[in-house]
Amino acid sequence: MSNLENSKKNKYTPSGDGGIKAGIVGGAGYTGGELVRLLINHPQVEIAFINSSSNAGKFVYEVHKDLLGETELKFSSELILSEGNVDVIFLCAGHGEAKKFVEANEIPSSIKLIDIGNDFRLAKDANIKERNFVYGLVELNKIQIQSAQNIANPGCFATAIQLGLLPLAKAGLLKDVYTTAITGSTGAGQSLSATSHFSWRANNISAYKTLTHQHLGEIHQSLHQLQNSFPNSPSGVGGVHFVPWRGDFTRGIYVSSIIDTDLSLDELKTLYKNFYADAAFTHYSDSMIDLKQVVNTNKCLINIEKQGNKMVVHSVIDNLLKGASGQALQNMNLLFGLDETTGLKLKAIRF
Amino acid sequence: MSNLENSKKNKYTPSGDGGIKAGIVGGAGYTGGELVRLLINHPQVEIAFINSSSNAGKFVYEVHKDLLGETELKFSSELILSEGNVDVIFLCAGHGEAKKFVEANEIPSSIKLIDIGNDFRLAKDANIKERNFVYGLVELNKIQIQSAQNIANPGCFATAIQLGLLPLAKAGLLKDVYTTAITGSTGAGQSLSATSHFSWRANNISAYKTLTHQHLGEIHQSLHQLQNSFPNSPSGVGGVHFVPWRGDFTRGIYVSSIIDTDLSLDELKTLYKNFYADAAFTHYSDSMIDLKQVVNTNKCLINIEKQGNKMVVHSVIDNLLKGASGQALQNMNLLFGLDETTGLKLKAIRF
Amino acid sequence: MSNLENSKKNKYTPSGDGGIKAGIVGGAGYTGGELVRLLINHPQVEIAFINSSSNAGKFVYEVHKDLLGETELKFSSELILSEGNVDVIFLCAGHGEAKKFVEANEIPSSIKLIDIGNDFRLAKDANIKERNFVYGLVELNKIQIQSAQNIANPGCFATAIQLGLLPLAKAGLLKDVYTTAITGSTGAGQSLSATSHFSWRANNISAYKTLTHQHLGEIHQSLHQLQNSFPNSPSGVGGVHFVPWRGDFTRGIYVSSIIDTDLSLDELKTLYKNFYADAAFTHYSDSMIDLKQVVNTNKCLINIEKQGNKMVVHSVIDNLLKGASGQALQNMNLLFGLDETTGLKLKAIRF
Amino acid sequence: MSNLENSKKNKYTPSGDGGIKAGIVGGAGYTGGELVRLLINHPQVEIAFINSSSNAGKFVYEVHKDLLGETELKFSSELILSEGNVDVIFLCAGHGEAKKFVEANEIPSSIKLIDIGNDFRLAKDANIKERNFVYGLVELNKIQIQSAQNIANPGCFATAIQLGLLPLAKAGLLKDVYTTAITGSTGAGQSLSATSHFSWRANNISAYKTLTHQHLGEIHQSLHQLQNSFPNSPSGVGGVHFVPWRGDFTRGIYVSSIIDTDLSLDELKTLYKNFYADAAFTHYSDSMIDLKQVVNTNKCLINIEKQGNKMVVHSVIDNLLKGASGQALQNMNLLFGLDETTGLKLKAIRF
Repeated sequence: MSNLENSKKNKYTPSGDGGIKAGIVGGAGYTGGELVRLLINHPQVEIAFINSSSNAGKFVYEVHKDLLGETELKFSSELILSEGNVDVIFLCAGHGEAKKFVEANEIPSSIKLIDIGNDFRLAKDANIKERNFVYGLVELNKIQIQSAQNIANPGCFATAIQLGLLPLAKAGLLKDVYTTAITGSTGAGQSLSATSHFSWRANNISAYKTLTHQHLGEIHQSLHQLQNSFPNSPSGVGGVHFVPWRGDFTRGIYVSSIIDTDLSLDELKTLYKNFYADAAFTHYSDSMIDLKQVVNTNKCLINIEKQGNKMVVHSVIDNLLKGASGQALQNMNLLFGLDETTGLKLKAIRF
Repeated sequence: MSNLENSKKNKYTPSGDGGIKAGIVGGAGYTGGELVRLLINHPQVEIAFINSSSNAGKFVYEVHKDLLGETELKFSSELILSEGNVDVIFLCAGHGEAKKFVEANEIPSSIKLIDIGNDFRLAKDANIKERNFVYGLVELNKIQIQSAQNIANPGCFATAIQLGLLPLAKAGLLKDVYTTAITGSTGAGQSLSATSHFSWRANNISAYKTLTHQHLGEIHQSLHQLQNSFPNSPSGVGGVHFVPWRGDFTRGIYVSSIIDTDLSLDELKTLYKNFYADAAFTHYSDSMIDLKQVVNTNKCLINIEKQGNKMVVHSVIDNLLKGASGQALQNMNLLFGLDETTGLKLKAIRF
Repeated sequence: MSNLENSKKNKYTPSGDGGIKAGIVGGAGYTGGELVRLLINHPQVEIAFINSSSNAGKFVYEVHKDLLGETELKFSSELILSEGNVDVIFLCAGHGEAKKFVEANEIPSSIKLIDIGNDFRLAKDANIKERNFVYGLVELNKIQIQSAQNIANPGCFATAIQLGLLPLAKAGLLKDVYTTAITGSTGAGQSLSATSHFSWRANNISAYKTLTHQHLGEIHQSLHQLQNSFPNSPSGVGGVHFVPWRGDFTRGIYVSSIIDTDLSLDELKTLYKNFYADAAFTHYSDSMIDLKQVVNTNKCLINIEKQGNKMVVHSVIDNLLKGASGQALQNMNLLFGLDETTGLKLKAIRF
Repeated sequence: MSNLENSKKNKYTPSGDGGIKAGIVGGAGYTGGELVRLLINHPQVEIAFINSSSNAGKFVYEVHKDLLGETELKFSSELILSEGNVDVIFLCAGHGEAKKFVEANEIPSSIKLIDIGNDFRLAKDANIKERNFVYGLVELNKIQIQSAQNIANPGCFATAIQLGLLPLAKAGLLKDVYTTAITGSTGAGQSLSATSHFSWRANNISAYKTLTHQHLGEIHQSLHQLQNSFPNSPSGVGGVHFVPWRGDFTRGIYVSSIIDTDLSLDELKTLYKNFYADAAFTHYSDSMIDLKQVVNTNKCLINIEKQGNKMVVHSVIDNLLKGASGQALQNMNLLFGLDETTGLKLKAIRF
């Protein structure tokens, strides 16, 4: 198979043969591209195929142009779905497409699926054709992930907001949460639109999907999992009240949530530090945080402050990495018993 | 006086002689510069002096370099404080400096003062040497402003946040307010600092002064003025809970505030439209708003949304104009009985 | 006519009746929008119509959203082409469309036309249906413009590059010119494309149309007009060798051209200062220039430097104003005998 | 030594013991920070010390805040200069400081030095205290580098410009070169200045050091090394005529150079492809290039175009990586006989 041959010619030779054979469905989009960037340097992965019907036959670097000189892989219109030839498939085809893909194809149960989209995140959607999808927020479900067959990778806003709230939920302390979060333009994918037009978006800020963002479902589900008294789904009354903003930058999510609490700041810090003591990528920061501490990495940083009876928790991630493809690879590492951080020791852009 | 002679040589000749004679103290900073930009095109103002001791003798365009070709005015180390030679003085010298200026100088009572800083905004600070400063938020205090001698010009965040809340306060509907607002870098002035360094701030977001921003005082004071049950000052318990963010753009403030309410969205819209029906620069927008609708103008646009029992009010201003020098000029127009919009019909940057 | 009635309701009342009646064809694009922004504040213009078939019936502020609160004008699908009801028409419909418009309509010769596009800029294209178009670079052709019927408004790059070279051409000093210029994204209009997508363009730089940009024709024509020995059109051998770059900002053009010369720096400065001594908007700067000195204004600033036998001339403009709609209005002012700067005393964004 | 102990606690455990022991002098600046980011993930390097007198005792992540969670290393005021305890020292202390460092300290000749600054780049400066510094442009001097003791790492602009010209120089084809290049703000380091202030630099462009940039020396020296007829140093007459621009982005350099040539485009492409056939990080691109293809990587991409008798060569690098710390590490890899790409397979930011 020519893509495999190509992968051996890769100038930056990964370990290659004998590794985990990974396929990507929807490899021409942003999350697919990020996965290619990560996987070509992952020491235990061999790319089995990068599917993109509209780009079949093209070199990957013709679409993801930064990859010139790094890989000779090509896009393929074919899928490899036979046991032994592929071990895991990343579904990056867009919301709704993953479900269609599973329904349309006979995929041996030994092949693991990781869906970057939102098709299988809610418990009510998590079962399909005898497959069960585990919600892949590692900081919440690590043990279940390690033995999972399939992963529903969390949404980007959902990841950043939940990581800021999990310690409170575990301690049963969550009440109403007032959240504002700002996201980079890559969160909206690569399709052209008025709000992704440079002349409009540069130096601009705007709200959208106020109090109705689609990630509220998975957020409530996770918080309810840890704190039974918290509503399992958004109702417009109690729960997380979330105002998303479009930012004038490309990558990253910054979240601030305001919550009532009687605990002292020190007690709260202890909660957070304990909760994330063993997390590979999520860390409590004693000093103020800024977005570019995590851009181009798989990390999440968290800081809390308090005044009167209100606490504010700030959290930051890279929406395409910890909020999508990086977290998907972290999940893959766990599925295959590897160190969580393999292939994810990424240099931050910082400046 | 050579500056006056210079002003007559101004290529873009303002009406000049016979107009309002205006002085600027602290003319080399951002707000001073914006005032110069506005005043040289104001048809009824003649600039009496632009004080900046560190730049005395320089042409104004040597500091505010965009003014090359538009004015031959120079900075002066002198002050003109004699009746008949100056009618109004804008104090742009930085927080704390206005008070020192008033204390140090004998200024005839006929000369009006407009302080861009925060020295006289709170009622407890508003009286000094038989001068009383009226809080210059036109949408709140228009009648008092029209007959005022001195103006304490509102803060930038304070302006944007209050304009989003005044209609609710007037209707007695305010409860706890959960506010996040993002500001451009010019809000921090032109002094050099780590957080205004381009390499750090570009593409970055960060919170600061969480729940403790100094504008909370004037915000509470105004809301309490309209709704007696709202706390007169921030306490950390009830009131406005405000998280300010540094944005990666230069100009503008975007605010979203979340508030509990039983009113319907239609009732709320009616409240807002009625409240601002006669406002010259503040308008309710039926469609979603974005920051660049107002950048480089003196306008404020407001939009509200509702879900369940929560409403969100979004408001946008240019921090240096409606949030500082533009509002100061609007106040000056009112002090002298001019149309509020004189000299303030500014072309938005939009893109 | 309802638009006229609307214009009287304009909150920022322009002089209105009795003024120059102006129509805009293609009012929904960037240059059309900028014209509306300028014309509603022009003291001697009354807007007769703003044509946009796709937006007919909508308020102008529904498309140009910054205009909310400033005008109640609506887009119209109709054209007003009858004597007495319109005095001047701005053609902003896109390259090629102006020619079609003139060919398709019977327009009384008393109605003046100003084409923002490139249909009539070259001498060979300048005559159509007994109309002659004068190339509207004021610094080159002011006298001809004052008595012209129709104007071919210069291109944005063409304006910035020519203004940097005219003094040399007039002195007969031009040899090969090596030019690099960078433009804001608005130069590419508001259509969506891969290179105007925010996620791609932010923080990015790229060259395009290397040595082949379509403005080279009008540039050579003008330089040849002043210096007969300079080629009248681009040949790929002698002349202006121009590399255009896409910048990661929205507005403005920065040009640096390198030219061989035997003159001293002082002699060169004298040439430039003399050439532009009477120009209303183009000024020689003794200190280094930067782009934001002119953004959101109709100005051009120029600075030159010299080392060995090479001089470098830097020039900056706002591509949508001096490079398009502002220059068009400057031309209109001249066509109607007004002061060139009327309605064009614009506040720079500066920060 | 406690830093070494700390390095073993590093969460992302590098190979550690037995590797190359590297020290960094000036570890708190941009290039020092980038080196730390690279070295902590380099499989064959152990960090011996990170010297910064002003930050001694602080955790590295307190200064380079993105490193929180990745390393427990601390800054040290001490230097380790004894054989066996350090194998290579990176000098990142700023121009002029490296020379002082070498003069002030007794450094065993077995310890290799890599100077990121410009102290030893010119042949006339390359010898000091029996040490000889090889100019570390790998694409030019690979063989000399492999057997070198000390490296003078090339400047950022110098790297990008030279890589665009080396194939022509080798073929003896260089004549006058007209170069414009734009750089990100990180090129100016982290010191605060008017031109690195966010409010000024955002959305701005400006030229500086026109035709006089200090990198012209090393550029001419290298080109002369390959083409004897090319001047060995800048004279203001023949050679490279270079206009540097400040860009409104943080990272990267984009260069376009215009050169006379009689060769066809195909012949030129062949020259470039052959010259870089074996280069690890420098690649000829058949399609147009843009800056973000290389940001956050150690790569250089090159594309050429031709019209008439003029060719234009475009080249792009990340100024902090290929233009500084990445190239330094590439040099280190060669000094120690490692694969050039070790530790440098970096994920591009791309968006």
